Amino acid sequence: MITEEVAKAKRASLRMAALSTETKNSALEAMASALNKGRDRIIAANMIDMEAADREVSEGRMTQALAKRLKVDGDKIDEMISGIRDVAKLQDPVGETISSLELDEGLELYQIRCPIGVIGTIFESRPDVVPQIMALCLKSGNSVVFKGGSEAAASNRELFETLSDAAASAGVPRDAFVLMESREDVSRILKLDGMIDLLIPRGSNDFVRYIKESTKIPVLGHAAGICHVYVHKSADVGKALNVTADSKMQYPAVCNAAETLLVDAEVAERFLSRINEVLVKGGVEVRADAEALPYMGNAKAASDSDWDAEYNDLILSVKVVHSLTEAIDFINLHGSHHTDSIIAEDREAIETFVKNVDSADIMVNASTRFADGYRFGKGAEVGISTNKVHSRGPVGMEGLTIYKYVLLGNGQVVKDYVGKNAKKYTHRKMGGELRF
Amino acid sequence: MITEEVAKAKRASLRMAALSTETKNSALEAMASALNKGRDRIIAANMIDMEAADREVSEGRMTQALAKRLKVDGDKIDEMISGIRDVAKLQDPVGETISSLELDEGLELYQIRCPIGVIGTIFESRPDVVPQIMALCLKSGNSVVFKGGSEAAASNRELFETLSDAAASAGVPRDAFVLMESREDVSRILKLDGMIDLLIPRGSNDFVRYIKESTKIPVLGHAAGICHVYVHKSADVGKALNVTADSKMQYPAVCNAAETLLVDAEVAERFLSRINEVLVKGGVEVRADAEALPYMGNAKAASDSDWDAEYNDLILSVKVVHSLTEAIDFINLHGSHHTDSIIAEDREAIETFVKNVDSADIMVNASTRFADGYRFGKGAEVGISTNKVHSRGPVGMEGLTIYKYVLLGNGQVVKDYVGKNAKKYTHRKMGGELRF
Repeated sequence: MITEEVAKAKRASLRMAALSTETKNSALEAMASALNKGRDRIIAANMIDMEAADREVSEGRMTQALAKRLKVDGDKIDEMISGIRDVAKLQDPVGETISSLELDEGLELYQIRCPIGVIGTIFESRPDVVPQIMALCLKSGNSVVFKGGSEAAASNRELFETLSDAAASAGVPRDAFVLMESREDVSRILKLDGMIDLLIPRGSNDFVRYIKESTKIPVLGHAAGICHVYVHKSADVGKALNVTADSKMQYPAVCNAAETLLVDAEVAERFLSRINEVLVKGGVEVRADAEALPYMGNAKAASDSDWDAEYNDLILSVKVVHSLTEAIDFINLHGSHHTDSIIAEDREAIETFVKNVDSADIMVNASTRFADGYRFGKGAEVGISTNKVHSRGPVGMEGLTIYKYVLLGNGQVVKDYVGKNAKKYTHRKMGGELRF
Repeated sequence: MITEEVAKAKRASLRMAALSTETKNSALEAMASALNKGRDRIIAANMIDMEAADREVSEGRMTQALAKRLKVDGDKIDEMISGIRDVAKLQDPVGETISSLELDEGLELYQIRCPIGVIGTIFESRPDVVPQIMALCLKSGNSVVFKGGSEAAASNRELFETLSDAAASAGVPRDAFVLMESREDVSRILKLDGMIDLLIPRGSNDFVRYIKESTKIPVLGHAAGICHVYVHKSADVGKALNVTADSKMQYPAVCNAAETLLVDAEVAERFLSRINEVLVKGGVEVRADAEALPYMGNAKAASDSDWDAEYNDLILSVKVVHSLTEAIDFINLHGSHHTDSIIAEDREAIETFVKNVDSADIMVNASTRFADGYRFGKGAEVGISTNKVHSRGPVGMEGLTIYKYVLLGNGQVVKDYVGKNAKKYTHRKMGGELRF
């Protein structure tokens, strides 16, 4: 059954790939208006989920934080609507000429951006994943299979029906959108590696790790965000104070917040007592290694497990290092290859750090918190990836696309380009777009 | 043990990523000279494998074709040497600025090409995979783990030692190269998804399919090459004859040769008897559907299984279709999403075909046989991919790379860009390269 629905989405993906930008944008506008008109029904559906959640919370089976993330109110719907309209404003990636090369006179090769096909998204709690991911997949010409958590079943269903009916009314194939609801559907989805081309999980680190470990479908995401700020001996102490404070304290619950501060021994005395003051004032619990401890007031001693911990909270581990190399090795060993920052004025040290730290985002004299799709100018964020293939770092709509090669000829055959008197390839870069 | 060797390669990959172009090119030159100097030892090692292979052939346990692919002689070594020197001439992809964006004045984001990390290659027979893949991985700054077949064990070992010693003599970390030899190592490699970032299998379709089905490591490759030539009713029959003949006959044993010919009913009468003559003269066995059969002389009737067959031989299935849509649907259903060609003069039909056929390479009035890394101007081919993420179609050295983001600031913090009086992002495209 689920296989049949996904197979239909796969077939629909071919029509999705060929939709005009106009159709896609009018479908997005129809989706935005439908949310606006459907407010009462959406909020009523969400009440069902919220009432069930309240019971779970009162009986200690759900945290208050989780229940809060379920909530859909008027403001939330406004955000969904403006999110969809923002996607409508983004440039259509489909059909973009990525590169072009003349192979020979009259034989032109174009590399053209196109949709991936079928995107699967498995998510916990937040019903706002439905409008966000549906809008991004539609604009990039992909079909999408959703599997939400049972705790948000009524909200997800109402949002899904409202949005996909609206999209269909504008000429988008209805089959392109699938919503799965039962718990067993998760394991079924994870096995559909012939049909689903890319999975985007949304949820806790453990959840993402479970998805990654349980499927052969490529997964876009990150299972941890252990980010470092490294204060090099050449650092401007003022910048180091600001960037460290922002990286830890501006929003500690997220993946791009810093968890560990590394400080060169040469600058430890000048820097550590001052940053300690800032951190303590900000309510941060400090866990310091033996060399840092003397400068850190009442800080606790760090244990070995602190170097691999993602606190996502107002806690920071602090360690003194004795060289740039030690810092780089430490980050590559204990970090999660997500985002790491160096504070330094020495250009050579910066270059070495940038080249040798194996992370998606390397910040130079800037906060780790900048690692984000919106800040990186992507308009909308599909996710942040620590993968080493396809997409890495903050991923925008381009992460939902791949390319195809189109070779335009007028009857050329390979036979003429081999053997004696073979014609030669020109392999000349062109600049143009593919035109039919 | 294997895990320890691969872990060393992983650590070495960080140093590989930071090697200068100069070091890499002199290592490649050292590898080329070492092959030249080591001719006698390499050929002697190959004799051991060839003698064993001859015994296998005479006892019917190995095909003559397979044994032939094992052979390394002086000419083969010359090819290896010139292959390595070609890679030295390719531009170093590492460090290339892919894009750059000003987030705000003095806050500049660079997307920089970098190596993936550790590449695994599992291959059958051909010992020339060792120099070819080692050269490509070295130039792109990756570590590489080889697992060759036992039938080529002596040749692979001699080539591997010669090449990695030569690279090490030029300053490349010796640990970056690993050769696995036992049969059990294959299943061990397939489980190292935390350490090996990308697998490149080289061998039969069944072999590639097995690798893809048995690992969570991303696999670059294709498990089938069922390519079509579609002759639209607007086709120039002369072009259709040439392109069909070349696509089938120029080199039928390879993945980008055509297996099925689709012909619009309107052009069947004019085209089919003429192409039949060409095919018969070329020794091609034709298997035609009921509508095509009357025009195809003594052709056999096609059975259902012909539409999903990859012959890799002088056999062609032929079918009459009644619309562009029927052709597109047939190709998307029966093809392997590798390479498909349309012969047409009608621009609208071409555009519809290009947009709707879900294949890595779409040829317009050109032979399917052009789908190849060298012909596509990539200098060297890592493989041809039918994946929908990372790399698709013929893949050059860029398929062994990913990117990292580098944000150059002077102390900027996210706090200043949120809330009231927030600073605004400029998100202005820049054109420059990253300079330290």
